[in-house]
Amino acid sequence: MKLYYSKGACSLAVRILLHEMGIPCEFELVNLQTKKTEKGEDFLAINPKGAVPTLKLDTGEILTENGVIQQYLADKHHATKLFPPNTQFDHYQVLEWMNYVATDLHKNCSPLFNPNIPAELKEKMFVPYLRTKFDYVDKHLKNRNYLVGNSFTLPDAYLFTVARWLPHFGIDRKSWPHLSRFFEACKEKKSVLQALSEEQLSAD
Amino acid sequence: MKLYYSKGACSLAVRILLHEMGIPCEFELVNLQTKKTEKGEDFLAINPKGAVPTLKLDTGEILTENGVIQQYLADKHHATKLFPPNTQFDHYQVLEWMNYVATDLHKNCSPLFNPNIPAELKEKMFVPYLRTKFDYVDKHLKNRNYLVGNSFTLPDAYLFTVARWLPHFGIDRKSWPHLSRFFEACKEKKSVLQALSEEQLSAD
Repeated sequence: MKLYYSKGACSLAVRILLHEMGIPCEFELVNLQTKKTEKGEDFLAINPKGAVPTLKLDTGEILTENGVIQQYLADKHHATKLFPPNTQFDHYQVLEWMNYVATDLHKNCSPLFNPNIPAELKEKMFVPYLRTKFDYVDKHLKNRNYLVGNSFTLPDAYLFTVARWLPHFGIDRKSWPHLSRFFEACKEKKSVLQALSEEQLSAD
Repeated sequence: MKLYYSKGACSLAVRILLHEMGIPCEFELVNLQTKKTEKGEDFLAINPKGAVPTLKLDTGEILTENGVIQQYLADKHHATKLFPPNTQFDHYQVLEWMNYVATDLHKNCSPLFNPNIPAELKEKMFVPYLRTKFDYVDKHLKNRNYLVGNSFTLPDAYLFTVARWLPHFGIDRKSWPHLSRFFEACKEKKSVLQALSEEQLSAD
């Protein structure tokens, strides 16, 4: 099995979860500008969407979309603590948060990564909008350690990954005390430390 | 069970799927500006995210996030044609398309709905970007009737719903022949006709 990733991109969430589940995996870096992998492969021939994470299974089949790769890995490895079975309501709560992180947090970061959007518009519109989305997370985390139940589940790895980007947008994570506490707790997890170290990333 | 919806919004996908599965459901309109429901309820007390679709279960529990509501309904009603079980690889292919429609199509429509983004920027940046995301869908649909396998599954309802918005952005759906064929085929489905009629919507 091979995970195509880009340094610090949302593929970091999958790497964290692979370590959390103890799944051995090969990792191959993708240059998202040139669409070439570190071994010189044409990444668009592997995933025509050109996005990471992309998972190549041992059968050769390709799986894309962050949250879907996460679910696939948890299902195959019976990681029911990370992703409860669909006979339990918290299965859907995990999915709700996964979808929220993907659509309301991650996708609202995209304009801030875009150099063609005027800085003034970012400051006036996209930053405040993203902040409201994190306000909701912070409020939710007020009396809890993690997003669902009281243990680490799939969307926590994804939230950590997206919250790590905030300083790049000039947003101080400390403006949200509960999110900050969550972030610091994640940083102490072995799976997170290993993932950060492998991608040669600082936590902040 | 009650579905909180807004006319023509992405909640239309859930309404189509409810009819596709033959699930009886109450529908309550939400004014997304005032955050009041048609019965005068404070919608933010029901779903603090203020977004539709929101599903209120008979137990009183609240479920949010479009794709998650879709999966919940299909799981509970054993709708394995719409959503194959996770022992089959097409389970994950359905989820891949669900995630693509949610993050790459739906979320890239959001700036085009936003009156505070300058028209010039929409034309120069957000419309062309959205078009590339539909290019990928059109190419995929070239030799197939629906997104996964050859029958209607969960993300088809969602794709129909988002593709319905294109004329509002001045984008001609006919520029994508395979997407157009898909759209016309959906319009002939009983579940789609019923959903459109209930929300007093034209297909285009």
